[in-house]
Amino acid sequence: MEVTNKYIVIKHHIEDSPKESHFEVKTEAIGLSLKPGSDEVIIKNLYISIDPYLINRMKSYSASHNAISFATPLTPGQAIDALVIGRVVTSGNAKFEKDDLVMGVFTWAEYSVVKEQSIIKKLESFEFPLTYHLGILGFSGLSAYGGFFEICKPRKGETVFVSAASGSVGNIVGQYAKLLGCYVVGCAGSQKKVTLLKEELGFDDAFNYKEETDLNSTLKRYFPDGIDIYFDNVGGEMLEAAVANMKAFGRVSVCGVISEYTDIGKRASPNMMDVVYKRITIRGFLAADYMNVFGDFSAKTLDYLRNGQLRVIEDRSLGVESIPSAFVGLFNGDNVGKKVVVLADE
Amino acid sequence: MEVTNKYIVIKHHIEDSPKESHFEVKTEAIGLSLKPGSDEVIIKNLYISIDPYLINRMKSYSASHNAISFATPLTPGQAIDALVIGRVVTSGNAKFEKDDLVMGVFTWAEYSVVKEQSIIKKLESFEFPLTYHLGILGFSGLSAYGGFFEICKPRKGETVFVSAASGSVGNIVGQYAKLLGCYVVGCAGSQKKVTLLKEELGFDDAFNYKEETDLNSTLKRYFPDGIDIYFDNVGGEMLEAAVANMKAFGRVSVCGVISEYTDIGKRASPNMMDVVYKRITIRGFLAADYMNVFGDFSAKTLDYLRNGQLRVIEDRSLGVESIPSAFVGLFNGDNVGKKVVVLADE
Ligand SMILES: NC(=O)c1ccc[n+]([C@@H]2O[C@H](COP(=O)([O-])OP(=O)(O)OC[C@H]3O[C@@H](n4cnc5c(N)ncnc54)[C@H](OP(=O)(O)O)[C@@H]3O)[C@@H](O)[C@H]2O)c1
Ligand SMILES: NC(=O)c1ccc[n+]([C@@H]2O[C@H](COP(=O)([O-])OP(=O)(O)OC[C@H]3O[C@@H](n4cnc5c(N)ncnc54)[C@H](OP(=O)(O)O)[C@@H]3O)[C@@H](O)[C@H]2O)c1
Repeated sequence: MEVTNKYIVIKHHIEDSPKESHFEVKTEAIGLSLKPGSDEVIIKNLYISIDPYLINRMKSYSASHNAISFATPLTPGQAIDALVIGRVVTSGNAKFEKDDLVMGVFTWAEYSVVKEQSIIKKLESFEFPLTYHLGILGFSGLSAYGGFFEICKPRKGETVFVSAASGSVGNIVGQYAKLLGCYVVGCAGSQKKVTLLKEELGFDDAFNYKEETDLNSTLKRYFPDGIDIYFDNVGGEMLEAAVANMKAFGRVSVCGVISEYTDIGKRASPNMMDVVYKRITIRGFLAADYMNVFGDFSAKTLDYLRNGQLRVIEDRSLGVESIPSAFVGLFNGDNVGKKVVVLADE
Repeated sequence: MEVTNKYIVIKHHIEDSPKESHFEVKTEAIGLSLKPGSDEVIIKNLYISIDPYLINRMKSYSASHNAISFATPLTPGQAIDALVIGRVVTSGNAKFEKDDLVMGVFTWAEYSVVKEQSIIKKLESFEFPLTYHLGILGFSGLSAYGGFFEICKPRKGETVFVSAASGSVGNIVGQYAKLLGCYVVGCAGSQKKVTLLKEELGFDDAFNYKEETDLNSTLKRYFPDGIDIYFDNVGGEMLEAAVANMKAFGRVSVCGVISEYTDIGKRASPNMMDVVYKRITIRGFLAADYMNVFGDFSAKTLDYLRNGQLRVIEDRSLGVESIPSAFVGLFNGDNVGKKVVVLADE
């Protein structure tokens, strides 16, 4: 049997803000049976994780390209690889059989034909939506967990500031910090998001950064005695203002710098005099470095979920054609929580 | 008995590069005997430590002022406090007696009248020059030790880059790193200093940063496989270039940012994409935080000195009138190694 497979490509490298017109939906005919002897696995994709870092792979040059294997540049015209949950249609590999649910690095496509090494793990349907494996129980959760607990070594009562706080990683960081007993303030790009943070997610306070003219004074207002921990998702001026407002021995965990991804000339220049005199630590990390604590992370997070102590915020779009707008939307703040594109019924 | 005491003041706050004309030699008559009941100690100053950070205290505003007690702003017209070694002339305090050698936070002056809390410790003449207590066995050494071993956690074989490498802290860091078995490159501001680093101090390589036009490529040339550890004394473009050339899991120990002290508009903007993707740690510190390892530091460093494994580089000027030029010279790279002003014979 043959099907038409729609997949998404970039038409050319993207050097600044992504637009839907930079993308193209392509189609190909693929057979759903494998040649004898093939060890491939054909997967029908169900849920696609939409992640900001891909913009860096879409550039012709980025400092990130040489840093780590999964940050290599994408080739215009070719299928884009991303984190996906799908169901096996046909398998030439003895470890997988038809109807298995799998998560792995597949493609922005309806179907992906992959080798074993692209499959991260088999999944089973469980008490929560499968998409949690892409967000709260997947890399967003692990980023929040590793970047907050392992990098920041937070203590009860400390003051915590989170940017992109209504986003997938940010909202989890804020909730973990509240569960630990920290004082938590988040910023986000709309009044609606601010309300969500304060009224649904338990943040002590929150503000819309787009309405502030002097972030330095804004942070002084929210943290009159200074910030112990800044969980940075955005970089740029927000990082500068946070460093200026850190307490002595403050820690900045740099998860991402989304405001710098789409503006190659934009660079944070935190005051290094603050860094020295206040003995601040600024540290970058990748979730992948924390696979060693995945067991702990996942056990604790599942417990919190079962006890109703963590709220899960997902933002879904439907159909392969919606991938470009879902992706572009990340850079406009359209999403609230984990952005996922749903391609088919389970 | 009364003496004329010469002391140095700033005429006004200094907002950019210090010039000798910003300073003034003042004189006052002071009695060398104390009023009955006074608990003060009168000290004849012998050696004055000349330190870059004082420029930050001479500004009308600096991020450093509120960070820590010893960074408070200086008042024009008033005696400038600094690290000094002196000899007790008269003591109203039972813990000190005439002719004791003491180190403490005294003044840029021939004589200082102080209270007990300004005296850090009594010294004895020992096998090495007393001035070592201001440099290699004092805060320069402790900065090098704490900032290199405690912050960078270096391992044998790692690649280390040091800026202001012929300076007081820098030259010690480079020598410690060589003793550990690291590959060490330093930069400094003249050919003479470069020769010193390579031929006398055992650095693997060194360059004159003033002759380089593109620091990024310069560092790529010296570290084709990247930098594990950058010990930063200067900030600015050098910090940016170092971050761009760090290896994965690289560590930047920020000891000082002298190039930014005299130029309020100058800020390093290291690429945060490098910080995230290469999981770089940038961490500021103050030597004072490492008093807990002072014993280890001093035992090890004395051992190295006794075995002839550490070279000591000092740069002396004579007389209280030479303090302004000695200080100004730090910002022009006039000094080689620890800058000390000698005021009187022991
Ligand atoms: N280190 C790692 O391993 C790792 C793993 C996952 C994610 N990350 C990073 O973590 C950050 C958050 O990722 P996520 O997956 O949780 O995405 P997300 O926060 O769910 O979505 C991105 C959000 O960023 C905000 N944003 C977009 N442009 C911005 C700008 N110019 N200035 C300030 N905010 C902006 C938007 O919210 P507003 O409405 O608030 O503007 C948007 O909703 C990203 O930087 C990402 O690259 C790192
Ligand atoms: N964190 C702490 O506790 C602590 C303690 C002591 C010192 N420090 C800091 O460590 C650094 C070194 O201090 P030090 O006492 O050892 O002084 P030093 O290095 O002996 O003297 C300063 C040297 O800095 C270099 N320099 C001056 N202006 C520069 C510029 N614009 N760009 C690049 N290099 C410049 C000069 O050498 P070149 O000829 O190479 O230009 C000069 O000789 C300073 O930043 C200081 O504030 C920090």
